[in-house]
Amino acid sequence: MDLLENVVGMVVVEVEVPPAVAVLLGVAGRRSRHHLPHTLPHGAPGAALSAPFLPQALNELALGSPSLVVLPLDVTDAGSIGAAAGQVQEELRGAGLGLLINNTGARRRSTLETETAENMALLYATNTVGPLQVTQAFLPLLREAAEAGRGQGLSCSRAAVVNVSSAMGSIGVAAAWGDAQDISYRCSKAALNMLTKCQALQYGDSGILCVAIDPGCVEPAPGRESGPVTMEESTQGVLRVLAGLSASSNGTFWDWRGQRLPW
Amino acid sequence: MDLLENVVGMVVVEVEVPPAVAVLLGVAGRRSRHHLPHTLPHGAPGAALSAPFLPQALNELALGSPSLVVLPLDVTDAGSIGAAAGQVQEELRGAGLGLLINNTGARRRSTLETETAENMALLYATNTVGPLQVTQAFLPLLREAAEAGRGQGLSCSRAAVVNVSSAMGSIGVAAAWGDAQDISYRCSKAALNMLTKCQALQYGDSGILCVAIDPGCVEPAPGRESGPVTMEESTQGVLRVLAGLSASSNGTFWDWRGQRLPW
Repeated sequence: MDLLENVVGMVVVEVEVPPAVAVLLGVAGRRSRHHLPHTLPHGAPGAALSAPFLPQALNELALGSPSLVVLPLDVTDAGSIGAAAGQVQEELRGAGLGLLINNTGARRRSTLETETAENMALLYATNTVGPLQVTQAFLPLLREAAEAGRGQGLSCSRAAVVNVSSAMGSIGVAAAWGDAQDISYRCSKAALNMLTKCQALQYGDSGILCVAIDPGCVEPAPGRESGPVTMEESTQGVLRVLAGLSASSNGTFWDWRGQRLPW
Repeated sequence: MDLLENVVGMVVVEVEVPPAVAVLLGVAGRRSRHHLPHTLPHGAPGAALSAPFLPQALNELALGSPSLVVLPLDVTDAGSIGAAAGQVQEELRGAGLGLLINNTGARRRSTLETETAENMALLYATNTVGPLQVTQAFLPLLREAAEAGRGQGLSCSRAAVVNVSSAMGSIGVAAAWGDAQDISYRCSKAALNMLTKCQALQYGDSGILCVAIDPGCVEPAPGRESGPVTMEESTQGVLRVLAGLSASSNGTFWDWRGQRLPW
């Protein structure tokens, strides 16, 4: 059973510069329809570029917000990632990329008994390897933004990579174990957290802040109208956390309420 | 560059029953030649079964220790895993399996800049998905040992899964970052640690203890005779840690010195 299957997602770039430009990835899931308008740090008029296969809601959003550029992206395909990064670079016309939010994600229902090598590989490719390769491709643009903000400390308004993780990927917390074992999902998110730590160690000195964040679960359980967290609470919470990050937050893991999560 | 490439490893079963039987997996690397005689919990005479493609040292060991049964195993191949589990079951003649040590591992040199999707997938398959599927296959035998020890608390002499991890896979410690970024290795071991936690949550109630352990680095750096840890220190340390584990250790992460590691 697929919960959030959005390997083929979108890049949404807010091209109003300054201030910093935001990229969101993998926004073809149900969650993203709602998250999208809120999660971009700035409101944003401009000029929109839509692709024919976009979900209706994303198309509408792009048409209504002319500063948004929407591009196709498959985070499991290096060619697609490279093409998207090239297009973003063109759109930015020499400006840097201030914020990369790796929001692509897939999830499968499983237990220790039913988990398969196939699902493990699929979710790792999407949830862990995807953010690795996307960040590699967008790194030159992030470096430009960091360089432009030279002299400032680390922050999301200078240059940052935000990896969207989950409390289910916290080994210490192992959230919601009784509700969903989902081994492939948990393992891929723990690995994403490790990637985040590595990125923080490597890129922090270049002025790029790297963190993992759990946006909370906005998916309603079967028969429910809303998830444990409302979309509004989640998106406002994430924005508040991002705004408060500084050098001492580099390489850390937060939830949408602003609580530090253990690895 | 391959450091420890032993996808096609071996199962080594000590068939002296009682006490508990041990299985080691993936022992084709340099490290295992030395680790093997020490790591098995019991000394062991008996009857040996060797495969033609075994490394010389393993063959010699098997011939010299008649209670050891050596079987081929590819932890990335479900058919191979199932066949090995079936053969172990036959060898055990109705007895359970007291200790499963998931010791298979691969490592590649990489940095954040050079890491590839191919290496990420390969190391995840070997270091994370392998232990998942091996444990799934051997679970009935582990359950038998746990059941035979009903009334006892959790321990490695009742029934246990030991996943061989690394301090390099501790997100909190991120050991040896300055020496080796090795992203694919670190991410696969962090995911293995998550798997260990999931196994502990699920199997602990059935009497099976599950832990992750860092045996220390016994690989010499280029130009050096020995690693930071000697083989003797590592193997004796690991055995001491395993002997001291109890119910409160379920789902934890240790190094060979007996120090708890953070996730």
